[in-house]
Amino acid sequence: WDAKTTAYLFYMKRCVHAPDIRVSEAVDRGYAQSCSCGGTLGDARARAIGASRGALGVAAVLMRASPRVHRTPRYVRVHSGREAACHRSWQSSLAELQTRGSMGPTVATIPRKLVALGAKPSVWLEFTPLAAALRAVNLGQGFPDWEPPAWVAGAAKNAVADLAPETQQYARSRGHPRLLETIADVYGRLRFHGRSLDPNRNVLVTNGASGAIYLAISCLVDDGDEVVVFEPTFDIYMGAVRLAGGIPRCVPLVWRAPPRAKVANEDATEPASCAADWCIDWEALREAIGPRTRVLMLNTPHNPLGKVLTRKELEQLAELVHAHPQVTVVSDEVYENIVFDGREHISFGTLPHMFDRCVSIFSAGKNFSVTGWKIGWMIGPEELIQRFHAAQQFVVFSVCTPMQVAVAECLAEAERRHYFRELAALYQERRDQLVATLRQSGLDPIVPQGGYFVVANFGKLPGFTNQFPAALSALEGGRVPGLEIDDATRHRADYNFARWLSFECGVTPIPLSAFFCERHADRANTLVRFAFCKQSQVLEEVSRRLQRFRDISGR
Amino acid sequence: WDAKTTAYLFYMKRCVHAPDIRVSEAVDRGYAQSCSCGGTLGDARARAIGASRGALGVAAVLMRASPRVHRTPRYVRVHSGREAACHRSWQSSLAELQTRGSMGPTVATIPRKLVALGAKPSVWLEFTPLAAALRAVNLGQGFPDWEPPAWVAGAAKNAVADLAPETQQYARSRGHPRLLETIADVYGRLRFHGRSLDPNRNVLVTNGASGAIYLAISCLVDDGDEVVVFEPTFDIYMGAVRLAGGIPRCVPLVWRAPPRAKVANEDATEPASCAADWCIDWEALREAIGPRTRVLMLNTPHNPLGKVLTRKELEQLAELVHAHPQVTVVSDEVYENIVFDGREHISFGTLPHMFDRCVSIFSAGKNFSVTGWKIGWMIGPEELIQRFHAAQQFVVFSVCTPMQVAVAECLAEAERRHYFRELAALYQERRDQLVATLRQSGLDPIVPQGGYFVVANFGKLPGFTNQFPAALSALEGGRVPGLEIDDATRHRADYNFARWLSFECGVTPIPLSAFFCERHADRANTLVRFAFCKQSQVLEEVSRRLQRFRDISGR
Repeated sequence: WDAKTTAYLFYMKRCVHAPDIRVSEAVDRGYAQSCSCGGTLGDARARAIGASRGALGVAAVLMRASPRVHRTPRYVRVHSGREAACHRSWQSSLAELQTRGSMGPTVATIPRKLVALGAKPSVWLEFTPLAAALRAVNLGQGFPDWEPPAWVAGAAKNAVADLAPETQQYARSRGHPRLLETIADVYGRLRFHGRSLDPNRNVLVTNGASGAIYLAISCLVDDGDEVVVFEPTFDIYMGAVRLAGGIPRCVPLVWRAPPRAKVANEDATEPASCAADWCIDWEALREAIGPRTRVLMLNTPHNPLGKVLTRKELEQLAELVHAHPQVTVVSDEVYENIVFDGREHISFGTLPHMFDRCVSIFSAGKNFSVTGWKIGWMIGPEELIQRFHAAQQFVVFSVCTPMQVAVAECLAEAERRHYFRELAALYQERRDQLVATLRQSGLDPIVPQGGYFVVANFGKLPGFTNQFPAALSALEGGRVPGLEIDDATRHRADYNFARWLSFECGVTPIPLSAFFCERHADRANTLVRFAFCKQSQVLEEVSRRLQRFRDISGR
Repeated sequence: WDAKTTAYLFYMKRCVHAPDIRVSEAVDRGYAQSCSCGGTLGDARARAIGASRGALGVAAVLMRASPRVHRTPRYVRVHSGREAACHRSWQSSLAELQTRGSMGPTVATIPRKLVALGAKPSVWLEFTPLAAALRAVNLGQGFPDWEPPAWVAGAAKNAVADLAPETQQYARSRGHPRLLETIADVYGRLRFHGRSLDPNRNVLVTNGASGAIYLAISCLVDDGDEVVVFEPTFDIYMGAVRLAGGIPRCVPLVWRAPPRAKVANEDATEPASCAADWCIDWEALREAIGPRTRVLMLNTPHNPLGKVLTRKELEQLAELVHAHPQVTVVSDEVYENIVFDGREHISFGTLPHMFDRCVSIFSAGKNFSVTGWKIGWMIGPEELIQRFHAAQQFVVFSVCTPMQVAVAECLAEAERRHYFRELAALYQERRDQLVATLRQSGLDPIVPQGGYFVVANFGKLPGFTNQFPAALSALEGGRVPGLEIDDATRHRADYNFARWLSFECGVTPIPLSAFFCERHADRANTLVRFAFCKQSQVLEEVSRRLQRFRDISGR
């Protein structure tokens, strides 16, 4: 056997439970590096081959190497969704192998929902290690890098100091009574303008907003049902839809230069781009909603664009929802309190007749700068909340009790302190700082109206794109050990810009095509996303580092 | 319109979005109590009728009342899984109504998985409020009522006091590095007898053990796949299987009086029942495993029986698993450290060749008496952990960071303090206390070998069963406001015993048929479960209260 076959068998050994394949006990135990069959191969490399090909790839290679195989392996277990989804050619090789009798049956224990999930590599898996390896300032990740306010930390301290079962043992699946009551009270009065919310019927506490999004989608969407999603879109929605067996119907927001932009910025060297210029394509939206549409995903303030939907836009949406009884709105409003320039966030459920057609999702992590606490909540009509609650009992059963108690205290305290005004002002300052830096660098920022991301357009400065190939090969050539650049993104300009900027300037954004489906990815060709939920001095460092960008681009 | 029709319309108004039905704006907004059509009806009662009948029931009544309906409602939204599952007669009424043109289409937005889930009422929804209303000592619920050890509380204090992003912001989906490393180290050395576990490949941190169970089942089971479950069974398994679209195949443990029981208890007035006498029915198990079986659910130490599987039993299971490549074992081992009489818990993954065929699930809540922290973890082969990790990103994204950090400290500290011995001794004391009390009362306890529940058999004392009807009618007659006794359980002896004992003696157990499927429920006819994770004085109070039981039963 050559080293390569050994590597496959090495991997296969773990996949097929094969006493039939002659790989040494040393390999069997703890993945040692030598094989009785003679070849030797580094553990890391064997892993890499195994991981990139998977059991089916192994089987396909085995087929070619079959004279070398002593006995028929009893079966092949197929382990990853990606593997099952991607490698049709391997599947046919395997079928051939089985026909020839040199391979037992394939045992694929992968539910279809995971196969649907597995095909697309995650953008985070590339850029988080990339930024770390290059010591780049990582503006890819969306969490604040500052300490939460002292009174927020104090609420957590109080909660963990209370050792009574009410605070340290299981909360009810629906949520801790104290938190439910606080949410019903505060959100009823403020966010829902005086609507009376029943803590035991209209509220559900979840494992963060992500837990709420999953729960809502999985309880509304059946195999083959459709979910309408606006693009660019927070990537977690797509995963939740696919896990539910649903089909995403992506409707890209479209850029429309409004006449007022030119007027308002007469003095500026160029008209400012603004998130408000990204508009709902009503015709496309109407086309996307069909009899199998079950969910319309809303997200305002919007990640990644920072668009805050206007009342007029929401009213138009409400009209559509009213015309389509089969549709429920899942409204992700986690940036509810991070809105700028005196704007107001409007919850879709406050529109006439829409409370019963919508579930709104909120987040303690975003509101109190503690994304790690993982406390979120949903507000909606009893019928929906009841359904989600029924499922939640079996998904997570309940959510961290002491943190629920802490969040109840935080919500009450935030109102007393008028804290959310402060929060919006803090973020607006950071936004202005990053927007100014990007503008100076010619990286035309799309000014966000809310949220903590800014999307920038590098399309007006194409001069440096010829440097991409060199940067790519430097990165792959060992500068970032283990970096695997997926073929699907190797030629995307936004990915390469993000790689190049990380490599050349030490600042890491996220390519925006990661927020689009395959079909619409080209719309993000010249766009990347930067997070500004970072301390002022970090953003100053970004400005310093982008000096190099200004030098190169000749600004 | 009479008040009843109004009530239905009142409810329907919320279901059908019906500008077509003449119900006043007052009803539309905030569920006011008066209707323009003349009738008035209390909000609570209207809710009750609506809730018990649902949209389909409303529609069926509407059909009978149709001359009174002015126009055709545009559609009926069906909201709950239970409703969709239960009321076939209403569905046919509705179809008739639609044929006659006096009703628009039904819009059921309920995924099949929720319909499957919704039919069985939860035992907890009856007995938790029942115990509260009667001020009974609630031995139904399985959480410790004592304070966690001071050093456990201290670990939480340390974690929330550290305001750095590593402790307060998102952890990675896989888990906080510190916790992953501690788990890999401690479990690799101790639980897995020196196996080298890779923190980034063999471990996944989840939202409690329940989150792990859901994740494992949903990632292994596709629509129509089968899961083998031993009965009695922790009810959360069944929910997770149904949500995944799976079909549970229930294999009841069978009671076999062993000869040694009589020998060991020669001096006792009667032979002691022991959890070990409940055995796997190997023939039934072999029959239950088929080509579509994807998961074999294991649970040792076992809830509710307290059985600890022996090495011999585990070896026999391993043989079966080896013969069935399509099967993965999901092994719930949350009571790993709560084992009695010097017994040892054996993890299924430590059996030869079984590590790759199994995922083991553990719980900080059970190990450190902090069920509210909701930190659990899975240990298994890379291929499975990787798959669960891929899904977890979209189910909860990540788990509470400060509590992960605290649990890492607890695990390390527990080893230094030899804490788990202490924990087992604590629980063994409580077990002995409750077992003695039950025995004195003639409630033949099945002595558990692990876990914190004891199942008792009241079948040898049938004298008091004639008191059940009186107790039932007292309970329903207003003694417990809002108590709804489900028709499905009204004639079950174990349910009625639990109701009667709560009412008559002020001690609430859980009827054991709640842990069996419909087909096997009769096997639990004379069995109820008591939790002994309660303070010594609480168990003493139980003993005092059971004096009344002894009086009645003539012990």
